[in-house]
Amino acid sequence: MLAEIITIGDEILIGQTLDTNSAWLGEHLNTYGVEVIQISSINDKKESIVNALKAAETRADIILITGGLGPTKDDITKKVLADYFGAQLIPNHGALENIKDIFHRRGREVLQINVDQALVPDNCEVILNTKGTAPGMYFEENDKIYVSMPGVPYEMKAMMEQVVFRKLNAKGDNYTIVHDTITVVGVPESHLSVAIESVEDNLPPHVKLAYLPHLNLVRLRLSAKSIALSPAQLKSDIDTAFAAIKSIIGNVWFDGDRNLPEIVGEMLIENRRTIGTIESCSGGYVAHSLTAIAGSSAYYKGSLLTYAYETKVAIADIDQNMLNIYGAVSEEVCEAMAKNARKKLDVDYCISTTGIAGPGGGTDEKPVGLVFIGLAKPDGSIEVKRCEFHGTRLQIIERTAYTALDMVRRALDSSRQGTRA
Amino acid sequence: MLAEIITIGDEILIGQTLDTNSAWLGEHLNTYGVEVIQISSINDKKESIVNALKAAETRADIILITGGLGPTKDDITKKVLADYFGAQLIPNHGALENIKDIFHRRGREVLQINVDQALVPDNCEVILNTKGTAPGMYFEENDKIYVSMPGVPYEMKAMMEQVVFRKLNAKGDNYTIVHDTITVVGVPESHLSVAIESVEDNLPPHVKLAYLPHLNLVRLRLSAKSIALSPAQLKSDIDTAFAAIKSIIGNVWFDGDRNLPEIVGEMLIENRRTIGTIESCSGGYVAHSLTAIAGSSAYYKGSLLTYAYETKVAIADIDQNMLNIYGAVSEEVCEAMAKNARKKLDVDYCISTTGIAGPGGGTDEKPVGLVFIGLAKPDGSIEVKRCEFHGTRLQIIERTAYTALDMVRRALDSSRQGTRA
Repeated sequence: MLAEIITIGDEILIGQTLDTNSAWLGEHLNTYGVEVIQISSINDKKESIVNALKAAETRADIILITGGLGPTKDDITKKVLADYFGAQLIPNHGALENIKDIFHRRGREVLQINVDQALVPDNCEVILNTKGTAPGMYFEENDKIYVSMPGVPYEMKAMMEQVVFRKLNAKGDNYTIVHDTITVVGVPESHLSVAIESVEDNLPPHVKLAYLPHLNLVRLRLSAKSIALSPAQLKSDIDTAFAAIKSIIGNVWFDGDRNLPEIVGEMLIENRRTIGTIESCSGGYVAHSLTAIAGSSAYYKGSLLTYAYETKVAIADIDQNMLNIYGAVSEEVCEAMAKNARKKLDVDYCISTTGIAGPGGGTDEKPVGLVFIGLAKPDGSIEVKRCEFHGTRLQIIERTAYTALDMVRRALDSSRQGTRA
Repeated sequence: MLAEIITIGDEILIGQTLDTNSAWLGEHLNTYGVEVIQISSINDKKESIVNALKAAETRADIILITGGLGPTKDDITKKVLADYFGAQLIPNHGALENIKDIFHRRGREVLQINVDQALVPDNCEVILNTKGTAPGMYFEENDKIYVSMPGVPYEMKAMMEQVVFRKLNAKGDNYTIVHDTITVVGVPESHLSVAIESVEDNLPPHVKLAYLPHLNLVRLRLSAKSIALSPAQLKSDIDTAFAAIKSIIGNVWFDGDRNLPEIVGEMLIENRRTIGTIESCSGGYVAHSLTAIAGSSAYYKGSLLTYAYETKVAIADIDQNMLNIYGAVSEEVCEAMAKNARKKLDVDYCISTTGIAGPGGGTDEKPVGLVFIGLAKPDGSIEVKRCEFHGTRLQIIERTAYTALDMVRRALDSSRQGTRA
């Protein structure tokens, strides 16, 4: 079955909110054999909603609508849907009890606009909201399924998981869709595509290859889709193609859709090495990148976050004279940070960062974006890289972390074996 | 002028990539008086692209297309646009020189598929790509503007900043659009809306109020849009309405679209207090949340990230006996962490976290999601909260940080003055 997602509300159109709901829906619908063919983000005017519904009906079997169900005047989705289907708004007992429950638990009075949230079109099946007040609505009209849910991510997700996926699954007649991804490091997309052209040209017609480049990683995704073939057969077709690709490109791939922290983690495990960090300008982001990975406690031991000048002295034993002479943002301090923290944390590798993330704090000599990144290695040697990054504070922080992790990857790469299992 | 954004590629539809490009475009176009009326994310089939272009033309003056410009076979945007406009693909000298430059700098051979990236429809004006190989394309046809850009965020942004915004600005006849947002803490959306109903009902017709709830924050956004009125007049209308809202709701608002780390930071500055962190399960994310805010060095001093058992002893002086008796994930250890780190970091407030972020490592007694959060306060007292979070590893980490920061907010709230400046 084919689905279209319609998100309602200005916050996505003016860039105030990232549309994480559609990404989550797209990913999960796929595992139920439902393919998302379009995502339309529209404003909360009646005309826009009606036009989007009409357009979606020409393409999709299932129309998932998020947003516009709040108690306030700017939220009109429910009224528009009732008009669209020629339905009346009627009170729903379960939804009202749920609303009363929530307000009583919070010790808040139930107002008329809270009671009105329990009104629903009389042609819908109510999806109870176990995480909030606005009820979800499930419609079957004109041989199409329409589901209207709140835009609050955890409310929408609970409705999908508790009710909607089960209902869609029962409809049957779905495609089988299988995706798999490998991640290739350090090869430009164009060179990769020429190298594996023979594999791409000989893919079965139901298998499709996509390139997803990101910095110096390229993710290769194979998607197989069929009504007739079994999931096992589709998986086998994908595996055959990936085996051919891997045999051509050699030792530069990792299974799965991997980011750099995952790849570094896997290499640390392969090499039985531990890592720690000492951060200044990156403010914990290198540590967070590493520890966001499940299983990172196998190699990550800890960090000193020496944000303030005096903390560098107090917890990382940086020499006060050195700070006075060179300044906190210097090759010398960066090197000393990596060296001292490697010892204190008792790790094989230790990353250090010190720089100016901005927007304030820059000078002519040391501008915003100047960052020193150190890496202390198992043999006791220390590599320091001087970087000049551009962009916002957050971009400078992210680029610092990415560059630091890529230094670790390169250091580990020399010790990798020629072929992977 | 009205714009529609079309993003091309399966990666957004299957949830592999978040659509950050559209959010950035929406935000920046608004400041140039261009209103985004729809974002359509579609797959990379010719039919989908053509249908999306036709639909967008019925709504928008400007159609911004991202994605599908890579060198590989799955990228067809350029060919479809050439067909759509009845144009021929011809080589562009500047684009080719740019491609050769990039490959020479990387020490890589220029392949035929790299040369082909310099082919462009003969009815377009080329937008040079200063960050990558794929040229951008600017078309004026049928009284509409079409801009096709790569999906790689920093390449697209550079093209918009270097060329496209300037061209749109020169077109004139744009709306003036002014947005402003305040953030309200700790009041449910429905109660807030009833409280300020009189203000909302008396807004000028060109001013619109939107509610954007997120956990226990509600952002109130006022948008004013007009062709006739000046930016100063629109700003003044918004200011008047916000003044009325603030006088009703009292001391629960912060200017701007604020997240919790920003609000906590502002309160720390108001109170002239410093803060530090000692993290285990949250792995640096509390520190990152605080230091992602510009100016955080005014109150944030540092952190000890005691991820491994032995690091808790080595750098935070946690008693080995205490760890043996209670385990690392315990109220006792959490309290000791906050106490010791507050001293070591020499700060007024110190947050501590210890728990099980999962997916592995849980037991019946201490399940995944069990997190203790401590807060050591200026008077030396320590509050410890026991939480049981649900969700993925990253959600548990995020909820830990959010809850920790909200504990700081509440602690600071008691010392806030009755009225704000």
